[in-house]
Order: sequence, then structure tokens, then C-alpha cells
Amino acid sequence: MKTNNKLVLGFFGFGVVGEGVYKVIGQTPSLSARIKKVCIKNPDKPRNAPRELFTTDANELLNDPEINIIVEMINDSDAAFNIVSTAMKNGKNVVSASKKMIAEHLPELLALQKETGLSLLYEAACCASIPVIRNLEEYYDNDLLHSISAVVNGSTNYILSKMFEEKLTFKNALLQAQQLGFAESDPTLDVDGYDALNKWTFLLTHAYGIIPEKGQLVFTGIQNINEQDAAVGAQKDCVIRLTAYAKKLKTGKVAAFVLPRFVKQDDLLAFIKNEFNGVVIESSFADKQFFYGKGAGSYPTASAVLSDISALRYGYKYEYKKLYHHEQGVLTNDFFVKVYVGFTDWKYVRKDEFESVEEWNSNNKVNYLVGIIHFKKLFQSDWWKKNGVSLVLTSDPIIESLDVVRLKKRSLELAGYTG
Amino acid sequence: MKTNNKLVLGFFGFGVVGEGVYKVIGQTPSLSARIKKVCIKNPDKPRNAPRELFTTDANELLNDPEINIIVEMINDSDAAFNIVSTAMKNGKNVVSASKKMIAEHLPELLALQKETGLSLLYEAACCASIPVIRNLEEYYDNDLLHSISAVVNGSTNYILSKMFEEKLTFKNALLQAQQLGFAESDPTLDVDGYDALNKWTFLLTHAYGIIPEKGQLVFTGIQNINEQDAAVGAQKDCVIRLTAYAKKLKTGKVAAFVLPRFVKQDDLLAFIKNEFNGVVIESSFADKQFFYGKGAGSYPTASAVLSDISALRYGYKYEYKKLYHHEQGVLTNDFFVKVYVGFTDWKYVRKDEFESVEEWNSNNKVNYLVGIIHFKKLFQSDWWKKNGVSLVLTSDPIIESLDVVRLKKRSLELAGYTG
Repeated sequence: MKTNNKLVLGFFGFGVVGEGVYKVIGQTPSLSARIKKVCIKNPDKPRNAPRELFTTDANELLNDPEINIIVEMINDSDAAFNIVSTAMKNGKNVVSASKKMIAEHLPELLALQKETGLSLLYEAACCASIPVIRNLEEYYDNDLLHSISAVVNGSTNYILSKMFEEKLTFKNALLQAQQLGFAESDPTLDVDGYDALNKWTFLLTHAYGIIPEKGQLVFTGIQNINEQDAAVGAQKDCVIRLTAYAKKLKTGKVAAFVLPRFVKQDDLLAFIKNEFNGVVIESSFADKQFFYGKGAGSYPTASAVLSDISALRYGYKYEYKKLYHHEQGVLTNDFFVKVYVGFTDWKYVRKDEFESVEEWNSNNKVNYLVGIIHFKKLFQSDWWKKNGVSLVLTSDPIIESLDVVRLKKRSLELAGYTG
Repeated sequence: MKTNNKLVLGFFGFGVVGEGVYKVIGQTPSLSARIKKVCIKNPDKPRNAPRELFTTDANELLNDPEINIIVEMINDSDAAFNIVSTAMKNGKNVVSASKKMIAEHLPELLALQKETGLSLLYEAACCASIPVIRNLEEYYDNDLLHSISAVVNGSTNYILSKMFEEKLTFKNALLQAQQLGFAESDPTLDVDGYDALNKWTFLLTHAYGIIPEKGQLVFTGIQNINEQDAAVGAQKDCVIRLTAYAKKLKTGKVAAFVLPRFVKQDDLLAFIKNEFNGVVIESSFADKQFFYGKGAGSYPTASAVLSDISALRYGYKYEYKKLYHHEQGVLTNDFFVKVYVGFTDWKYVRKDEFESVEEWNSNNKVNYLVGIIHFKKLFQSDWWKKNGVSLVLTSDPIIESLDVVRLKKRSLELAGYTG
């Protein structure tokens, strides 16, 4: 293993994460890394670093032969992709924290790594300080992954925690999250599930060798979760988690999605509270494993960036073993899920799409059903994402076998409900 | 990074772990590893593998130039050390699962790695399938570790869980653990804390660069924990965990020990139930992280061995960064702890050793105190390990400042107890 002690860094971005990494590197002299230049957009903004460190000219970094690592931490994902691809074409290794950019440009980024033989590391892009990508790559490389379920978005988890624990309304919980800096002023990316979807997109590559196409993954956020859902959950001794989930089915294909889900109080996912993130990995040999930590914030994210920079000293690369060395996983929507659907009006629910209904409550106060629906139906329609409807998976949501469903269909008839 | 695809393995041991690794390798063809020979002690024992695989002659493996990795999984720690050191002197990389051997021979094993430049990996020796060593080495290499607390012994944790959750007596819980294979027929190594101590010995090297000398770490097991302790814990909304603990104090020195400890129900350690293990890492940048999984058993241990073998394809080595590249940590006993002491008779308790007593209960039914004691006193004496006494740290056990203790000493006087 070659040790390259001369790490000369070029930064893009000096926001919360960029400044965090700058400070953290200042506090870890053992890394012997030098930040040569930081490219920023706005030269007039006051910065907590010497003026001569900054430039607005990207080429000053990208064409500097002394800089061997580009650390990309900007918000604009198209600009980020340009930076990253130019850097790699110019022979530089890259560390990135931009989940959106990675999710949107995954095929190109994979090709770039192949072509250049260079390293692109992005542990900070998923669950910040939790080393989930590296462990999936290195530690579970030969183990058979049954399933991964994870809470990968801190903002939504904070809101859900407050709704359940302190009985706050969605609105007030969101407001509190914003005040504490756990949610953006425009929270749509987080609340509607886009951020979790982005992270899950490339995590599926490391876990199962899947490169999801745009629109291929069923997802939603917690935008429609309301106090009734929380109350029903509490009755069932459950909390709601926006769960990123993937499971290898008996057919060998992989079910994957990002959806709100009821989880029992004693479930590992229920343990993940407030702004924390966590990942539960179930595999043949290692059995059930749980990784838990801060999924956002300046220092936790910086610590992941730092670990990636540090790994580059030894020429570390993701090998994408599941993609290149194993049989690639294939996504499927051919399975059933048991879901809770809350509604303000019965007319919003596409009742004909359900295979069976197990629970049914509709009165002035509480309006919901619990039933089984084919996952393809969720993929094809979007009534369940609209205002006035909240869909939450049950705690053990996936039903693979049709026989079980057929049996349960009887309950639908017995309940006098035949669609 | 050099990829060495030809992994030719020589096994020592074909017990629970050895057979597990054999099976697991058979199920992961992507590893392209070949087991050439397995050295066993008893040739007459029936084995679930072809007869020609086995030998009783260690040299057949150690002198075979084709075998490039020795996988050592035997129980006898002196024999294991001989095997490992001969193998390394003969130019072979080694994967070991023998925690006792590693703890007892740590300085020699470090020297051997330095001399030979070869790799010795032993992730399976601590918490089995939880990648704690590798993450401490690689991921937290530049982060400042505030503390690590861990449950590293599954047998004792199983017993404690059953005592708390099902109100079993210690005896019955132990019996159940033995029946389920979570405890050995001679459970002393586990129950008295030796196993946890062994694991903690080398984990301190990876976490803080400390190589504890024999007898330097204060430890005990759960041999004296009884139903009263469980009942008192339950009253305080706590469970007991045999906690391996290390904390960097304000002085820069490190407090470390293995002791039973009350942990609040909502503490991460309380979440670790039955035979599971878990590690909580608190650091400057990554904040609080939690790793959780199966800490023992054939397949979980095998999965760790497999990951180590797989890592050798890329010439992976522990760098012992905290030991060689950072300022080495220094152990100290110069701090105070708040402890609960249960007793059958007051005479067993060395009351004069306490700085203060906060709680006091002594009647026919319940006999215990909660007080503050200098840690050096625990190091120097052993009354607290003897029959009839059970010592349990409180949930936030370490008190660094003397001022706080002096103030609390008043409470001792107020309680009319002056030693």
C-alpha cells in the first residue's frame, strides 16, 4: 500500500460543510494536509479564513498541478458535476459531499472513475459521519445482504420525533427544526423525500450494484403526515420513520423505496430520534447490524470528508464490488405491501386498487384504513401522494407471496367491502 | 492498490468458528479463496469436510510456500501465538480470531508486524461481526475520541438481559445462556469479565494507542450481580450492562476499565440486549456514533474473518495510527467514580474508602449504598470483588473534579456517616 503523504487540497465551497472541514483540518495536524486554495462564488462575503486562500476562479484550482485532491462541497449540483468531472479528467482525486449531484450523475461518475482510474469518495453524502458506504463496500463485500433499512434524513426525522414525543403539529415541528438549523428555509427537498431519495439512489449501488434510473424508485416524504397518523401510530405502539428500504426478495430481485413507515417502539429504527440517522443491515452471515450517528451538521459532515481525504493517502477507491464483481441486483415492483392510509375524505382513496382491507375506521374523528396493495399500483398512480391522503407502510410491510394475499382477500369480503 | 487474487488459505482450528468460515467461503465464490489445508488437533473427530483437507501437522501449513494466509481460530492461546508468529516469520499474512492470544501477546504481535511488514488482522476477536477495529483504525483515525463505551461480551449481556427483563435469577439466566450456546460450560472467562478485558486490551490500542500491561486495567464481571441489584436498577429506570469503557479526561489522560454499570433505559447501551454487542463512540467531529450487532456465534464471527481475508487481497494492514503517528494515550486511575454497592453484610464494605455517600439503604430486604470513591482505591483493593458484595457504576460514573467531590462530602457528614 503506497502512502502518499503530500495531500494538497483545493476546496470548492466554504459554507457550513466547507468551513467545518477547514476548521477540522486545522485541528488534526497528523493528517498533514494543506489547503492550497478555496474557490467560492461570492468574494465579498466575510470568511473565517485568510483572504489569500480564496479565489472565484475555478481553473486556478482545476489547472494547478500541485493540487492532487479536489474537495467539492457546493450546493449547485450541475456546477458540482462540472467541477468533479473536470478535476478527474485533470488527474485529480475527488472527495464530494454533494448527494444530489452524485445521485443525478451516477452513471457518468461511474464511467469517469473507470476511465481515469482515479478515486471519487463521497462518504459525507450519505448519513454524514456514519461510515455506511465504506462498510458496505469493504465489510459486507462478500456477505449476502438480505435487507437494508435506514433513516437517512435528519430534518424529517426531527419533525416526526417531535410529532410523536411532544405531540407537536407538523407545522410547529417543522418550525422548530428550521429554528435549530435541522431544516432549510425551503424544506421541500427534505420534507418531500427528495434528499432521502438521492442518498438511497447511490447507496443501492454500493449495497446491491443497482443504478436506479430517474423515476424508477417509489418515494414520498412526510409532507402529508398529520396528527391523526401520529395518534393511530401511538395506539399501535409505533412511531413513524421516513424509511429508506431495500430488500432482496425470494425471487432474487430487489424491492427498494423511500416511504414513511410505522415502526414498533422496540425496533432499531425507532431508536433513531431527532436529527440522528441510522442504518440497519441484515445479512446472511453478520446477521443484523446497526450503525447510528449524526447524519448532518457541519462537524459530522466534515468528519466524513476528513476520513475520505485521509483514505486517499493510501489510494483508497470504491470498487463497486456488487456492480462489477458480483451479479448486479435488479429492481422489481412485483410484490405487495401492507399500508395504512389516512384520509380526510374517502373519495381521495383509490379503494379499487387494494387487494384486501384489514382495518377500517371512518367517522368524524378518525379516518383510515389498513390494507394490502400491489406495489406496482403505488408506482403507477399518485393518489396516495396527494393532499388529504397520508400513506404509511406498516411495520412489516412486504408481502411476497400471493397466496397469503388471496387468503386475506376473504377478509375484504367478510368486511362487506368489495370495491 | 495491488490486487492479489490468489488467496491460498491454511486454517488452524475447525471448531464453531473454523467450520463457519469454511462454510461461508463455500458460499462466496466471488472471494476466489482456496482453503488448501486445515490443521486440527484431533484427527478422529468427524468433520463436515473432505478428509484430505485435514492434517495434524502444523508445519505442513506453516512451511507451504503456496499458502499465503494463515487463518488462526484455535482456543489455546499459547499454541495460537506460536502459530501466528511462525507464520509471520515465514512470510505469511495472518487472520486471527483469538482475543485472548492477542491481548496476552500484544507487544510481541506489534513488534512482529513491524519487523515483517506483514499484516495481522483480527476483527473477529472483538465484537465478531461489528467492524469496530477497522472503523477505529480507518474512520476515526484523525478524529478526537472523547470516549468509547461498549458491551463486548454476549454471554454476560444475555444473563443480565434475562435478569432484568424476565426477572430470572442469575443462576437460571446462566443456565439458559448455556443451553442456548451463548455461554461456555465453564463460564468463568465470560462471567468474571476476563473475555471483555481481553477485548478491551487491544481495542484501547486502536482507539488511544495504549498498550495496557497485565493487571493495569481495573475490571470485574457480573459474578456477584444479584436480584437485589436488578431490582434497585429497575427502580432507578436502569438496567445493568457489563461496560467496557474508556474516556479521555480533561488532563489528557485516559480512564479505562471493564465494570458493571447502571445505564438508563434510553441509553444506547441499554438497547443492546441478549447476546448482542454494541459500541458507542463519542468524538469531537463525528459526535456520537453507535455500532451494534451480533458479537458471537459461528456465522457472525466467520463474517468478520471473511472480511479480513477479503481485505488482504488489497494488502490491507492495521496502521495503529494512534500508537505510531499520534501522541500515545496514557492510562490513569486518578479520578473518582460514583458507584452503587450492594452487600449482604455491612462488614464487607470498606466504608472508609468512600469520599461521600449519597444514598444508603440497609434493612432486612435491601442493602446498598451509592457513593463516590477514588478510582485508585478500586485499583488497589479487591473487597468490592468478593462474595457478598456487588459493585455497579452509576449511569454517569466519572467525576473528574475534586471540588465537586468535596462539596458532596458534606452530604456524608449530614447523613451522619463519617467513616
